[in-house]
Amino acid sequence: MSEATVDCYQSLQDRLVGDGVLVAMGVPGMYGKGRSFQATFDGIYQYVTAAGAPAGPELFRFPPLMPREHFLRTDYLRSFPDLIGSIHSFTGGNAEHAALLRTVEQGGDWAAALSPTDVMLLPAACYPLYPMATGRLPEGGRLFDVLGTCFRHEPSADPARMQVFHQREYVHLGTPDSAMDFRDGWLARSQELLTDLGLDVRAEVANDPFFGRAGRMLAVNQRESELKYEVVATVANAEKPTAIVSCNCHQDHLTGPFEIQTADGATAHSACIGFGMERITLALFSAHGTDTHTWPAAVRGRLWP
Amino acid sequence: MSEATVDCYQSLQDRLVGDGVLVAMGVPGMYGKGRSFQATFDGIYQYVTAAGAPAGPELFRFPPLMPREHFLRTDYLRSFPDLIGSIHSFTGGNAEHAALLRTVEQGGDWAAALSPTDVMLLPAACYPLYPMATGRLPEGGRLFDVLGTCFRHEPSADPARMQVFHQREYVHLGTPDSAMDFRDGWLARSQELLTDLGLDVRAEVANDPFFGRAGRMLAVNQRESELKYEVVATVANAEKPTAIVSCNCHQDHLTGPFEIQTADGATAHSACIGFGMERITLALFSAHGTDTHTWPAAVRGRLWP
Repeated sequence: MSEATVDCYQSLQDRLVGDGVLVAMGVPGMYGKGRSFQATFDGIYQYVTAAGAPAGPELFRFPPLMPREHFLRTDYLRSFPDLIGSIHSFTGGNAEHAALLRTVEQGGDWAAALSPTDVMLLPAACYPLYPMATGRLPEGGRLFDVLGTCFRHEPSADPARMQVFHQREYVHLGTPDSAMDFRDGWLARSQELLTDLGLDVRAEVANDPFFGRAGRMLAVNQRESELKYEVVATVANAEKPTAIVSCNCHQDHLTGPFEIQTADGATAHSACIGFGMERITLALFSAHGTDTHTWPAAVRGRLWP
Repeated sequence: MSEATVDCYQSLQDRLVGDGVLVAMGVPGMYGKGRSFQATFDGIYQYVTAAGAPAGPELFRFPPLMPREHFLRTDYLRSFPDLIGSIHSFTGGNAEHAALLRTVEQGGDWAAALSPTDVMLLPAACYPLYPMATGRLPEGGRLFDVLGTCFRHEPSADPARMQVFHQREYVHLGTPDSAMDFRDGWLARSQELLTDLGLDVRAEVANDPFFGRAGRMLAVNQRESELKYEVVATVANAEKPTAIVSCNCHQDHLTGPFEIQTADGATAHSACIGFGMERITLALFSAHGTDTHTWPAAVRGRLWP
């Protein structure tokens, strides 16, 4: 990472923390949100709700954790092992507890004595949907509205690369054609929505950050088949815009392992539009300044009608 | 746990899942929330906001994780080791990754190969406040509004004992007297607020579930000094009401380790009122039924004005 890029990150973070928008928590990529950040986040939430499909999606809100067993049925561990969060806890008795506390006092690796639990941190907002959709879909498929608290273990100086963040997603399960139509429709619609918030956005073909040697080929394949698009805007650095929305076709990548079929029994496809809630919030602060009272009236009217 | 109690839990869970209020996720104590649950949760949130101190607390929203270093400055590991969630991730290269995937395929303990990260799951909503309040308080102390996503590793059949849950808290930092006044004031006020939602509540002296042999004495001390009160209501079982609000004086238990002083330099005290958001929601479903449209008009008017 270039020195100029790191300077951009630091300068944005200093401005946001100095003006009480964010609070640094002492670990890279983890922040408390002040009142103006949260009010903007909530404004975007209702704006996305108002823009939602008129048919009315099925709404679910899941915890930031998911069962380890379901996690292993995805290929997340194969593709992104460095980003995972596995939850470990203490399962011993009085004697083991005393030993644990002694290890802490001696500055030792106390966490190594913990045991894996049945749960993992949630890496993507839509993951809890697939286990509950196993079986045949109705004609026309299903449409979901989820807000997920996602974790990715990638401590960074970039305020837009938080270790914990929220994705508001609309997720469609259906046929290959309906999934692609859904993705393309939202790719266009999301750019209009963001432009109406005064953001200068554009769509780009993208790829996920697949791990290691084998991952390079996966990334090339994903780009060549144009399965993932991102809508980017300036956050810290105008030269290197940040993805604030992600529009993806998963093909049968998740519907396959969870045995989800279309109404006529074929393996279903899935697609999603994910609004990166913190990143859109940061893009707005970057575009309009840290005092929300001075933002353009049209933008304020859309966020806080 | 008696068979009758387990039956109560199962019967409540069946009713909530059957009517689409909750979705079971395949792990005890972890649920997706349907539209009516989330709408009630959101209604309680705005009701608590409207009831908040007129002076206007400082509002912060923190992620469900906190720095491991700050976690160790509290005595949570000493008091509740069995409830913790430590985050572990993968830090190896291509060869270690291949070995990890082989362990998974062979059904081995793949998670044992992961490394502890810098972060822990958040056990209590107010914990991230203390590191940011180090130093002298202004005259009159400080008042905070937080909403925390808390984790406690206690898989349970009781729908009210979720592994992940939200605490909406008002937290006061000040003198021993102002902390006790704050606690007592909210203990009375919270009972009025809950009664106005049609809940049959009462306050009880309580204790935290301290771990092990040493913990029994801590629990007795806490009860004798009446530092913790809970407001209880019926959720699954009218014979065994559930704590839905918690009112606590922490004395210098958290302000001490984080070196927070009053305006005149003495060690500050802290107190909090915690609204158990999921538990209040469940108490409302238990009292008024699973169809929110049939709830008493006065209750609907307060939740959704």
